[in-house]
Amino acid sequence: MAAKKLLILPGDGIGQEVMVQVRRIIDWMGKKRNIEFEITEGLIGGSAFDATGTPLPQETLDAALAADAVLLGAVGGPKWDDLPFDKKPERGLLGIRKEMGLFANLRPATVFDALVDASTLKSEVVSGLDIMIVRELTGGLYFGQPRGIETLPNGERKGVNTLTYTTSEIQRIGRAAFDLARKRNKKLTSVDKANVLECTVLWREEMIKLQQTEYPDVQLEHMYVDNASMQLVRNPKQFDVMVTENMFGDILSDCAAMLTGSLGMLPSASLGAADANGNRKALYEPVHGSAPDIAGKDIANPLATILSFSMCLRYSFNMVAEADLIETAVKNVLKGGLRTADIMSPGKAKVSTTVMGEAIVREL
Amino acid sequence: MAAKKLLILPGDGIGQEVMVQVRRIIDWMGKKRNIEFEITEGLIGGSAFDATGTPLPQETLDAALAADAVLLGAVGGPKWDDLPFDKKPERGLLGIRKEMGLFANLRPATVFDALVDASTLKSEVVSGLDIMIVRELTGGLYFGQPRGIETLPNGERKGVNTLTYTTSEIQRIGRAAFDLARKRNKKLTSVDKANVLECTVLWREEMIKLQQTEYPDVQLEHMYVDNASMQLVRNPKQFDVMVTENMFGDILSDCAAMLTGSLGMLPSASLGAADANGNRKALYEPVHGSAPDIAGKDIANPLATILSFSMCLRYSFNMVAEADLIETAVKNVLKGGLRTADIMSPGKAKVSTTVMGEAIVREL
Ligand SMILES: CC(C)[C@H](C(=O)O)[C@@H](O)C(=O)O
Ligand SMILES: CC(C)[C@H](C(=O)O)[C@@H](O)C(=O)O
Repeated sequence: MAAKKLLILPGDGIGQEVMVQVRRIIDWMGKKRNIEFEITEGLIGGSAFDATGTPLPQETLDAALAADAVLLGAVGGPKWDDLPFDKKPERGLLGIRKEMGLFANLRPATVFDALVDASTLKSEVVSGLDIMIVRELTGGLYFGQPRGIETLPNGERKGVNTLTYTTSEIQRIGRAAFDLARKRNKKLTSVDKANVLECTVLWREEMIKLQQTEYPDVQLEHMYVDNASMQLVRNPKQFDVMVTENMFGDILSDCAAMLTGSLGMLPSASLGAADANGNRKALYEPVHGSAPDIAGKDIANPLATILSFSMCLRYSFNMVAEADLIETAVKNVLKGGLRTADIMSPGKAKVSTTVMGEAIVREL
Repeated sequence: MAAKKLLILPGDGIGQEVMVQVRRIIDWMGKKRNIEFEITEGLIGGSAFDATGTPLPQETLDAALAADAVLLGAVGGPKWDDLPFDKKPERGLLGIRKEMGLFANLRPATVFDALVDASTLKSEVVSGLDIMIVRELTGGLYFGQPRGIETLPNGERKGVNTLTYTTSEIQRIGRAAFDLARKRNKKLTSVDKANVLECTVLWREEMIKLQQTEYPDVQLEHMYVDNASMQLVRNPKQFDVMVTENMFGDILSDCAAMLTGSLGMLPSASLGAADANGNRKALYEPVHGSAPDIAGKDIANPLATILSFSMCLRYSFNMVAEADLIETAVKNVLKGGLRTADIMSPGKAKVSTTVMGEAIVREL
C-alpha cells in the first residue's frame, strides 16, 4: 500500500499544540501498526500571514490539492483582527475550502456518556445525543456575488452580500446528506427559511425532488431555521441528520455542538466530490476555534483534533480498525477520569494537553 | 384623554383564542379603571387570504397606519403552505412590518421564577435570565433586492436573496439598542459575522462609531453569530441587550426564547421611528407562532399575548401602572400554581386558555 499523503496545517492559537498530540498518535501507528504516512506540514491563517503575507500561501494550496487528506488545527486570533478583510486568517480557511471544492461539511454533535454532565442542558435532554449536521460549505452568503461595501451618491455607505444557490449545488449537498441519512436512521431534516427567502424555496423544492426520485427510502422533513434553533434547545434528540445551507449551518452546528457541553471533543469533516476512482478531497478539523486566550498554556483539549484524525482514517483512508481503536481509546481515557480543563468536573483528574495526548497513546 | 386607537389582528391558529383573553382584560380596564380604547379588529395572514384573497388587505394596512398601536396574534398554518410565495400568510406579517416602518423588534427572553423548571437547561444556568434581543426588522435578507428564482441558460435554476444594509439603517437600529442598553445595564452585545460578510463589517463599523460619538457610557462588545448561538446555550446570563440584523435576530431570538422553556410566556414589540410628537408606530405580538396543531382546542397559553398587551400599555400608551398590574397578576397566577399545558409541571393545576384568562382578570 502506497503511503498516504497527509497535509497537516496546525494554523493558529491552540491549533499548534493540539496537533503535537496527533503527531504522537501518528508515530504510534508507524511503530506499532506499521502504517506510514507521507506527511507535509504547511502554514495557514494568521501564522501564514505573519510568515508570508497571505493567510493561504500558494504552497499550502498546492500541497492541499496534492494530498490525500488535510488535517487542520484552527485559525484566527485578536492579533490579526485589524488586518484588511482579504488578509484575515479566516480567508485562508474559506479559500482552502473553496479551492479544494469541499462543499459538504459534516459536523457531528455527540454526547459522550462520561461527559453528559458537562452540558448546560438537563442530562435527560442530551444523554445519548447523536446528531449529524451536514452544512453546505462552498456556496451561499459566504461566497455569493455581488459583495462588498459601496458609497452611495448621497454619501451613505451600503454593505452587500448575496445568498445564492443553483440547483446543482443544492443537489450535490442534498445527495451527500441523503447518503448519510441512509447509512444512519433514514431520516433527514432539511432546514430552510422557505416562508421568507426564495433562495431557500428552491432549496426545499430540490430536496423534495431528490427524495422522490432517488431516496424514497429516506424520510424527509422540512423545518424553518428559527424553529430549528428552538427545537435544538427544546428536544435535540428528535434530530438525526440535518442538512442546511452554509450560514444557517454555521449557526446551528455551533448551537448543536454546545448542547453537548464539550466542544473540545467534536471533530468535523469537509468533503469534496468523488473523482473517477471514488476518492474525495477531504479536510478534517475540530469544531472549536483557535482559542487564543488559552493558547500556549498546555491546557487545551486535544481530543477534538485527535477525533478529527480518526475521522480522516475512517473516511479518507478506509482504516476502520484504526479509527475504531482511537475512538475507543478516547472513551476509555474519559472513563478513567482524565479531563482537560474545559470538560473538568468534580472528582475527576485535571490534566494538561500533553498528558491527555500521552494517555491516549498509552491506552492505544 | 382621547381614547387610544388600538387595532387588534388575531390572525390565524391560536391567535384567535388567545386574543379573546386579551379582550377580557380590556373590558376589565374599561369597567374597573375607566380606560376606554377605540378598538378596531382586522384580518391578517391566512384568514385574511381566505376572506379577501390577500394576506394583508388594504383595509388592514390603513387601519394599522391610523392606529396608535397594533396588537397581533399570530399568522400561518399548513392550510396555506401551498399558496404562491406572495400570498402566504407570512407576507402579511412582513408587509405590515415594512409598511409601518417597524425596524426595531424587541424580544425579551425572561425566565419567570415560577417557571424555571420548564427550561431544558439546568436551573442555575437560566434562573433569573433577563435578555433583551433587539432585532432589525425591515432590512437585510428579508427585504433585499435582487431576489427570486431564475432559470439559467443551461437550464439550471438559481435562487437569490440579498443581504444589504445602509449606514442609516444600521444607525437607527443601533440607536434603538443603545437607548435600551442605557436604560438597563449599559452593556450592549452587537452580533455580526464580520469575519466573513462585508455587510456586517459595515454593521460593526457603524456600531463602533455610534458608541464612540453618542453612547460612550454604554459598553459595546462584538460577537460572531456562530459564537453567539453557542454562548446563549453555554452561559446566557452573560448577555443583557443584544442587537443584530434581521435573519440572525430571527434565529437567535428563537433560540434565546426557548432557553426560558416557556415560549408561551414571551411578548415582543416592534417599533418604528418617533414622529415630531415623540409617538412611534408600534405592533405587539407574542413570540410564539400560530400553533395550528393545538388551535381551537382551548389549551393554548394566552399569557404571551396578554403580556404583549401589557408591553403595549407601557410603551405606546404610557400606562405604566396598568402594565405593572397585568405583569404582577401574571406572576401571581403562576405562583398560585395555574398552568396551561405548555408550561405544566408535576403538582401544578392544568387549566385551559379560558380559565387562565379568567384567572388573570380575577387576580386583577
Ligand atoms: C472561521 C470562520 C470563517 C468559520 C466559518 O464561519 O465557516 C468557522 O466559524 C467555522 O464554522 O468553521
Ligand atoms: C413568520 C415569519 C415570517 C417571522 C419572521 O421570520 O420574521 C417569524 O418567524 C418571526 O420571527 O416573527
